Amino acid sequence: MATRVGIIGASGFTGAELLRLLAGHDAFDVVLATGDSQAGTAVADLYPSLAAAYGDLTFAPYVDGLADEHGLDLAFCGLPHGTSQEIVPGLLDGNRVVVDLGADFRLDDPSLYPTWYGAEHTAPHLLTDAVYGLPELFREDLVGAHLIATPGCYVTTATLALAPLLRAGLVETSGIVVDAASGVSGAGRAPKPTNAFNTVDENFVAYGMLQHRHTPEMEQNLSKVAGADVQLIFTPHLAPMNRGILATCYARPTGPATTASVRDALHAAYDAEPFVVVVDEPPSTKATLGSNAVHVTAYADERTGWVVALAALDNLTKGASGGALQSANVALGLPEATGLPTVGLYP
Amino acid sequence: MATRVGIIGASGFTGAELLRLLAGHDAFDVVLATGDSQAGTAVADLYPSLAAAYGDLTFAPYVDGLADEHGLDLAFCGLPHGTSQEIVPGLLDGNRVVVDLGADFRLDDPSLYPTWYGAEHTAPHLLTDAVYGLPELFREDLVGAHLIATPGCYVTTATLALAPLLRAGLVETSGIVVDAASGVSGAGRAPKPTNAFNTVDENFVAYGMLQHRHTPEMEQNLSKVAGADVQLIFTPHLAPMNRGILATCYARPTGPATTASVRDALHAAYDAEPFVVVVDEPPSTKATLGSNAVHVTAYADERTGWVVALAALDNLTKGASGGALQSANVALGLPEATGLPTVGLYP
Amino acid sequence: MATRVGIIGASGFTGAELLRLLAGHDAFDVVLATGDSQAGTAVADLYPSLAAAYGDLTFAPYVDGLADEHGLDLAFCGLPHGTSQEIVPGLLDGNRVVVDLGADFRLDDPSLYPTWYGAEHTAPHLLTDAVYGLPELFREDLVGAHLIATPGCYVTTATLALAPLLRAGLVETSGIVVDAASGVSGAGRAPKPTNAFNTVDENFVAYGMLQHRHTPEMEQNLSKVAGADVQLIFTPHLAPMNRGILATCYARPTGPATTASVRDALHAAYDAEPFVVVVDEPPSTKATLGSNAVHVTAYADERTGWVVALAALDNLTKGASGGALQSANVALGLPEATGLPTVGLYP
Amino acid sequence: MATRVGIIGASGFTGAELLRLLAGHDAFDVVLATGDSQAGTAVADLYPSLAAAYGDLTFAPYVDGLADEHGLDLAFCGLPHGTSQEIVPGLLDGNRVVVDLGADFRLDDPSLYPTWYGAEHTAPHLLTDAVYGLPELFREDLVGAHLIATPGCYVTTATLALAPLLRAGLVETSGIVVDAASGVSGAGRAPKPTNAFNTVDENFVAYGMLQHRHTPEMEQNLSKVAGADVQLIFTPHLAPMNRGILATCYARPTGPATTASVRDALHAAYDAEPFVVVVDEPPSTKATLGSNAVHVTAYADERTGWVVALAALDNLTKGASGGALQSANVALGLPEATGLPTVGLYP
Repeated sequence: MATRVGIIGASGFTGAELLRLLAGHDAFDVVLATGDSQAGTAVADLYPSLAAAYGDLTFAPYVDGLADEHGLDLAFCGLPHGTSQEIVPGLLDGNRVVVDLGADFRLDDPSLYPTWYGAEHTAPHLLTDAVYGLPELFREDLVGAHLIATPGCYVTTATLALAPLLRAGLVETSGIVVDAASGVSGAGRAPKPTNAFNTVDENFVAYGMLQHRHTPEMEQNLSKVAGADVQLIFTPHLAPMNRGILATCYARPTGPATTASVRDALHAAYDAEPFVVVVDEPPSTKATLGSNAVHVTAYADERTGWVVALAALDNLTKGASGGALQSANVALGLPEATGLPTVGLYP
Repeated sequence: MATRVGIIGASGFTGAELLRLLAGHDAFDVVLATGDSQAGTAVADLYPSLAAAYGDLTFAPYVDGLADEHGLDLAFCGLPHGTSQEIVPGLLDGNRVVVDLGADFRLDDPSLYPTWYGAEHTAPHLLTDAVYGLPELFREDLVGAHLIATPGCYVTTATLALAPLLRAGLVETSGIVVDAASGVSGAGRAPKPTNAFNTVDENFVAYGMLQHRHTPEMEQNLSKVAGADVQLIFTPHLAPMNRGILATCYARPTGPATTASVRDALHAAYDAEPFVVVVDEPPSTKATLGSNAVHVTAYADERTGWVVALAALDNLTKGASGGALQSANVALGLPEATGLPTVGLYP
Repeated sequence: MATRVGIIGASGFTGAELLRLLAGHDAFDVVLATGDSQAGTAVADLYPSLAAAYGDLTFAPYVDGLADEHGLDLAFCGLPHGTSQEIVPGLLDGNRVVVDLGADFRLDDPSLYPTWYGAEHTAPHLLTDAVYGLPELFREDLVGAHLIATPGCYVTTATLALAPLLRAGLVETSGIVVDAASGVSGAGRAPKPTNAFNTVDENFVAYGMLQHRHTPEMEQNLSKVAGADVQLIFTPHLAPMNRGILATCYARPTGPATTASVRDALHAAYDAEPFVVVVDEPPSTKATLGSNAVHVTAYADERTGWVVALAALDNLTKGASGGALQSANVALGLPEATGLPTVGLYP
Repeated sequence: MATRVGIIGASGFTGAELLRLLAGHDAFDVVLATGDSQAGTAVADLYPSLAAAYGDLTFAPYVDGLADEHGLDLAFCGLPHGTSQEIVPGLLDGNRVVVDLGADFRLDDPSLYPTWYGAEHTAPHLLTDAVYGLPELFREDLVGAHLIATPGCYVTTATLALAPLLRAGLVETSGIVVDAASGVSGAGRAPKPTNAFNTVDENFVAYGMLQHRHTPEMEQNLSKVAGADVQLIFTPHLAPMNRGILATCYARPTGPATTASVRDALHAAYDAEPFVVVVDEPPSTKATLGSNAVHVTAYADERTGWVVALAALDNLTKGASGGALQSANVALGLPEATGLPTVGLYP
């Protein structure tokens, strides 16, 4: 019997991407999609790309008890930061699996929320229950998990580039630079001056200087694998494209390092992974378009004493909805790649 | 036992798209991919987007007997115009199914080849055997077919927009205008000034004025459904995007026509089709990106006496490799949608 | 002494384009830029592209008497449809030249406004005084004019493509099809779902089916040059680019026509024009980017009996602010090309 | 009397950009444009964007003596690396001013050419005569210069971002990271897989890892202003756009630094410059499109101990042809901004 799936907050881009992926997932059945701002709108009207598979689905307004009413076994939450922590406790009551795509359960330390998200966490007791949804680092913890926090899109990218190097002690834990660029879908569906076509097209610009919220999350992940406090500066940029993130990360080698030695560390970490490919050329975001794949590589510059690690992925797939679905598969004991494309659209 | 599939001429964009789609096709197994200009290159090096699924596949040079050697049950040909007609007779000897993605078997009348393709056809006897690979019009003929000619990308688009109106006698057979725009992938992978980024980006331009080769193919299809000679003018344009075709077609109504009446004809033709969606807003190419879907609609302008029919699709999926795979599924008696996404990537 | 120039409604894209062009105009001095929604904002903050030339200019709120207060000799109005007709009468009192970039004075026949713009015109007496700002057709009338109506962007494009053919009696006055595509800047600066990057990029779509407001304006212009009622159907499309319009226009020849004969008519009309270039290849929007140039050509299809005329221009330059400035130069007796680039940005 | 100007190697993008700018330069007259691969082609056929201003100019093949024959006062060279050093000695014989846009005279130290450009320099004696064409740093040296080396596009960007901070001793001279992205016009006009539309569009990718040739040039400039050896790592990226470079540069502060203190250093350096604007928001490439402007800013991250300096410009204008023209103006004693737009195209 198919798992009954609901998407709470389905009208945004991560919701649309979940619906796209779930249309090809044999074991999951979408029985509910909520979207308060689009309540009553047919999914096919807001996203004609989904028309052929979801002709009958309409966005519902969210009300308490809806998950029970629809007999949900699995709920994905694609809600604004701060909203999930209100709703998730109720969803968890039904003994179902909840996969949150927002930021509300990503940081272990409750004291970081006021600093980076501007408000106290309202359900801090759940932070210890939440499992971080990055199977490449925490697969064991995800098996049987009930509350999963899907990583931020930039965070998945930078973490997968740097983690093997830090875990192997090949690079220093301080002085790290993460310079990354994203397609504009990361900014969400709501129209605003910064995501208007005429602002974005033929433009490249940095934003969120010094204070992007994905910074502490990268530091948390990398500190765990390094076994020591990691500190980094992160500069995101907006590139004139729909999807895709590339992270170019700079770290100081702890000893003699060559391109071969750092790349070996990546191979050791990822050669058995279904979605991570270690490549020999600089990874391109386009090679991952629409797939759950991550392409990573690394270089050592002996002239200047830097190691450069790069990773590319699709921010809506592996960086959000695909990563969430991958974690759900693991949590529920399904083959990890179910419903997840390993190959990308090209060109 | 899986059907053994080979792609002859796999290094171009239609080959890459076939590989993308076949990675998700349960019943087909790709055992051969040839590409003379890329012989010896790993598929994953030319198309990193395919790395995670085709890590071991390398482009082979084509030689006679290769299809037998690999025990192919099904061969797709993605070859330049004129080349398929040399190779296909040999491929057909092995009692296999051959799906040609080129133009060599699209036109029934051998005398049209010198006019539109510049050379006599070298295997004209096969033109009567070839079945035209458009299931929405010729599904019956495709069942059990051995040689299938996949339609041109613009042709699929314009044919699906206009066919129901001509078949129902709602519009005149002469004076038709087909004005269409395509993404640049239609121009193929080989770099040339006309497909360079700096030529295409932020540009919109017509090309092939009065003499595009898809013209007689549209006329052939529409004449069949109209039961009378159809004549039309076709103007293709290049839009600054990777994929997608929109055809905006103008025809004269034969009698009183309303938007409701012409749209009814579309619904009657397509409501049972798995990949054609009749929409109420002008169809957007993006709604079909990466999927095998076609979105169509029509309007009647009572003020000026025109019917306007529009269709959108992804030129590499439904307009080429997806359409070819759909026809192969029908020919081999598989469920028609096997391996074919009905939902598109958005955004 | 420099002409004192004000821009009423300067915060939109046509205002920004006027400011760009006026930065290079020797005889005009911008002394006022209003923008109610941006009142108090520095021009350089809203449009950093203008920072180096307009470091001190701030958008003012519009109030009656402002034009007198600033001693304006020349006022450009870049206001929403319906607003100019309220303000222009007052501006004209000061014996200054007013160039309206909106639609309020484009149509001669007051009865067309309720039909196409949804409201009665409030200053119909001015419609007879207003001169239509298309120097290529109405240069004489513009000399000394006090109220100038700048044509719609699509209208300039289609009119310049078709006018010589209709004036010469080479094509029929009915059954004309104007199929055109525009960059998204034509939709204005205000963010909305239809101009969001993720909606527009990698997309091509028609809009305003059968009822775009530029239709009657094209018919008005072409009827004047043809000396008979012209009727046409117009379908605009949105292309994923910032600027540029291409119009592909289809008309029936009145007698034997060849590509040479229709192109001769274009040369006869335009060889002496400073901004119109008759080209031998299909014109590309990009060739006109940022310039006031228009590229036109025509073909005759003897097989199907159609004449195809094409024109390309930059919708914000020749299609709006550049055309407005060109008309202002003519009205004030300046060299027509003052401050107007004849060459475009490429690539 | 107008200065007689020739462009040697005019058929590439920097040549086309020079022609665009020179169309608006009152004191310079283009009398010669050479282009061996395009010899005999009309400029207007290769670049329709220039048709309205250069209807009669045709690319000539280059032969010795051509500069004398045409009485050139000023020659711009837009030639492949290695070619200028063969031709420039002859051009200089005529007592004319030569502005080289290639790399042949950028590096002072002849020993760097074999390392970074793969061959010994053939005219090393000219390296001491050549003046580096960056007026913001070396304006005095440019007055009356006869041989000018125009900086690399990335080099101008990174140098202008970092120079004031290094000159003021605010940041360390080692451990600097320059992470930059460029539009694809930097790759030149010749079609190749890496600049094909379908490769570039919707893609973001690094290239030239660890060994881009602009690295030693940045180090040379910054060492001069710092008065000490500067070493940096430079990673260029390709963004899906035509024009524009953004450099995001990371350096370690030498002492307590704040965003205010580093920005003060930028204001002190640039407030009197005609083309450099110090901005308070992250600079966007689009704000400089088609203009000779550079937008710069800087931040200090007290949490991690990094200073981040950013600069944006148009790689073909200020980053190449505009910068070259600016230097020529200085060398010849003209107003520095002659023929150079200070405002950009937006949107």
